[in-house]
Amino acid sequence: MKITTRRDALFAQLQTVTRAASTRSAVQALSGVQLLATKDGIELRATDMEIGLRVPLEGEVVREGSLVLPARLVVDVVRALPGKEVSLELRPVEQDVEILGGTASFHIRTLRLEDFPPFPEVDGDVVEVPGAAFVSTVNMVARSASRDETRPVLTGILVSAAGDELRMVATDSYRLSVKETKLEAPLAGSFEANVPARALQELTRIVQHENAEILNVSVRANQVVFAAGGIVLSSRLIDGQFPNYRQLLPDTYEHELRLAGGEVGEVVRRISLLAQKNAPLRLAFTEGELTVSARTPDVGEARETIPVPFAGEPLEIGFNPEFLRDGLDAIDGDVIIKLISPLRPGLLDDGAGFQYLLMPIRLNV
Amino acid sequence: MKITTRRDALFAQLQTVTRAASTRSAVQALSGVQLLATKDGIELRATDMEIGLRVPLEGEVVREGSLVLPARLVVDVVRALPGKEVSLELRPVEQDVEILGGTASFHIRTLRLEDFPPFPEVDGDVVEVPGAAFVSTVNMVARSASRDETRPVLTGILVSAAGDELRMVATDSYRLSVKETKLEAPLAGSFEANVPARALQELTRIVQHENAEILNVSVRANQVVFAAGGIVLSSRLIDGQFPNYRQLLPDTYEHELRLAGGEVGEVVRRISLLAQKNAPLRLAFTEGELTVSARTPDVGEARETIPVPFAGEPLEIGFNPEFLRDGLDAIDGDVIIKLISPLRPGLLDDGAGFQYLLMPIRLNV
Repeated sequence: MKITTRRDALFAQLQTVTRAASTRSAVQALSGVQLLATKDGIELRATDMEIGLRVPLEGEVVREGSLVLPARLVVDVVRALPGKEVSLELRPVEQDVEILGGTASFHIRTLRLEDFPPFPEVDGDVVEVPGAAFVSTVNMVARSASRDETRPVLTGILVSAAGDELRMVATDSYRLSVKETKLEAPLAGSFEANVPARALQELTRIVQHENAEILNVSVRANQVVFAAGGIVLSSRLIDGQFPNYRQLLPDTYEHELRLAGGEVGEVVRRISLLAQKNAPLRLAFTEGELTVSARTPDVGEARETIPVPFAGEPLEIGFNPEFLRDGLDAIDGDVIIKLISPLRPGLLDDGAGFQYLLMPIRLNV
Repeated sequence: MKITTRRDALFAQLQTVTRAASTRSAVQALSGVQLLATKDGIELRATDMEIGLRVPLEGEVVREGSLVLPARLVVDVVRALPGKEVSLELRPVEQDVEILGGTASFHIRTLRLEDFPPFPEVDGDVVEVPGAAFVSTVNMVARSASRDETRPVLTGILVSAAGDELRMVATDSYRLSVKETKLEAPLAGSFEANVPARALQELTRIVQHENAEILNVSVRANQVVFAAGGIVLSSRLIDGQFPNYRQLLPDTYEHELRLAGGEVGEVVRRISLLAQKNAPLRLAFTEGELTVSARTPDVGEARETIPVPFAGEPLEIGFNPEFLRDGLDAIDGDVIIKLISPLRPGLLDDGAGFQYLLMPIRLNV
């Protein structure tokens, strides 16, 4: 195998693809980047067995072939190379690749090509989804996905697309995010899949970086393949039954208040500084006022009161400060807060298809 | 104690002074900032017993007094406060301080004032040193100071000032930096002291931030006090005999080559990528050429040749790649490399008072 290419193109594509390389697998080849040169062109591939990336590379194929290189080292080497052009050539006897750029020459030991897994092809039913709508929908719900690997089903985002609606749902059992995005035109197909949040977050990065207007989505039994601007991201799907989120959303609420999201967010952020060591943030609603307060024993307390359009019997409810902030941060402009009682979940709603349901914390007086 | 002040002024000065607060002392008060309000004004103080900082604060003293606040929390609270004005008032019964800004109120438990150490005064002989010359001299040698606390004498920078010369020396026993800076006017006094490198690095930050033209230095038996632009930094001095660095510098060299520092630095930087796991960087000098190379077993090797004005018998010498880079990075423009033999130290010289002596690594063929 031998190719020549522009150094900056190689560096940019290596940086992209390397994000899928494993950083802790026992299989050394998974920490590598596969370089594949065929008569159709050059491609870089990486996978940690959960997600995989395929990235095209412009350049000249002098001799076809394939090899696997240690990802991090090669990124560092290509970043540091002098000159505008670079050549990579496999030296089968030495089991290394020769990288030449300017006056510098590197010989880097290749990893075992046999250990590098094959890559799923994009085939079957492909649904075209608008890239920007997909990205904004992921970004609104992703923070609610669980990072706890002991409940894998909650580490995913349930993505549904049908008609003119794209819907994503994520929950870590403490809070639940639902975002329904209306599309400008109906989709030519539909799918539903529980995709690892990490895969979707990588995908948003790619769609934005590639400025991809259209995302091609192909869902199979246990795999999803996304294609955006020449880059292909594949991900395993998560097994198991995603919670029935409709059942979790209350049908009616006692209180519904429209607040300036930015202002409430600032108050919550600063008062939270005194909600340390798992202390709750207290929201006390009285006629026309909301008092946000927190207390950490042996450290201190904080309190701030702002006018709000609350009416009726006073209501005091406690929330995890970080989770409340996450919900407020996801909403631009006004936020509608819906409450039932101190021990029932509260809801943040942006009035445009986003709902953030948050479990309360029981307050000891 | 009660004061009122501008929020942004308080935040800026807290950020400065907090750098001297301890992050790991068993004495809780040392993680705090002392706030001292007297008829002379307001001052913030912090110390970890090695270095101490005193910073003035503009504002109104409503009631004199003193208290100690948890540094990190107060920085976070003041950063987050609404409004332009802030007041701080000691509540002796509650043993806390009330911080009011805009609509927000905080009560933060104070730390034990009795545990907060007194601050050394600037007195005795004070020498005025130009701030910019002091900063640039520290910056050239500081990287050679040791971080190994088991040899405390090497964790300092030996600072000498007399006549029209400011000299600093640092060594970790693997490399030695000497910088002699000529001053525009002779100093009205002299001193020599082994000052912890960390104290001098904090000091350079302050001198630059305050744009201080003049630095007042007062050296006592085991303490040095610096004053720059209203801020006072004190530091303990390091006991013990600093190495006699003159004795370590060879009198004569076999080879003396003038090279473009930037270019050599780039070559060293990229070839070093293959000098992993303590592998040395090899510099092979032959007639008119320098080949820089490195090899890491099981990973690969790198090599690059550049023209240099070398003449005579070939010479190959090995260096720690990071230490060689540090020396090259300290020099702008041309660097003069001086060598004797593969087992004698090499020297980098900027021709303007900076010398960087570097021990070689013995090469196994």
